[in-house]
Amino acid sequence: MQRKIIPDIVQRTELTATTIDATAEQAAKDMTAANVAAIIVLDTNKALIGILTERDLSRRVVAENKRPSEIKVGDIMTANPDTLAPNDRASDALELMLTRRYRHLPVVGEDGKCVAMVSIRDLYEAVKEGLEENIRETEAFVFGDRYSA
Amino acid sequence: MQRKIIPDIVQRTELTATTIDATAEQAAKDMTAANVAAIIVLDTNKALIGILTERDLSRRVVAENKRPSEIKVGDIMTANPDTLAPNDRASDALELMLTRRYRHLPVVGEDGKCVAMVSIRDLYEAVKEGLEENIRETEAFVFGDRYSA
Repeated sequence: MQRKIIPDIVQRTELTATTIDATAEQAAKDMTAANVAAIIVLDTNKALIGILTERDLSRRVVAENKRPSEIKVGDIMTANPDTLAPNDRASDALELMLTRRYRHLPVVGEDGKCVAMVSIRDLYEAVKEGLEENIRETEAFVFGDRYSA
Repeated sequence: MQRKIIPDIVQRTELTATTIDATAEQAAKDMTAANVAAIIVLDTNKALIGILTERDLSRRVVAENKRPSEIKVGDIMTANPDTLAPNDRASDALELMLTRRYRHLPVVGEDGKCVAMVSIRDLYEAVKEGLEENIRETEAFVFGDRYSA
């Protein structure tokens, strides 16, 4: 069975979000509170305009010795990120993330609203479960149904 | 076949390292240059005493609005981290990382020296490859050898 991003990998959810005018300090606080490694950046119409990750904070604030309260999210986020659609296949999404070295991708619905965030860990876990299921079914076919009939 | 941390998942390597007296700024610069999300912290005898990750920098520097050049690695690292041994099994290591929510674990040899870093992505990829190999072998058994003989 081909697994779809929604509902097989993640559920639609109310994501923690930030804005381009928020400070790096506040975004990092929000990420800590939500226990996430990446946060979406929305404009005033709630449309997705960027993604901010722990990597961005490490490289563009800490490594550059910036004062976190003086840096705006809009200056350090990744703008116009690649996204997934709810119906995308998990295996295709994993390939995309491996090829482009992403660890997180937002999932955007048909109305343009961001409805979930997928991590590469979520995808690996789903692909692993799919393979394990494949093995169980094959073993049932080989050792179960054929011999117990 | 049970895959071992070394050599099946990662190779022994010269890891980028830092010290407790280095600043968060310098450690983040070193992580950026090495393109890694976690760095080991060694004492003056080259023994492993901690690990510092992008998450630590986000939560303990940016979220707390600290000036990166004024924070010492020793104050924000995770001290005495769990470690893997070169002969540990990939599947056991993945379970450990999922249970404790680690994304990186140092690999320490019998002489106490840190010889590699394993990420949860490395482990998932190895477990996935192992499952795919299992499927190929089973399919060869079911559809290949038995029918072509």
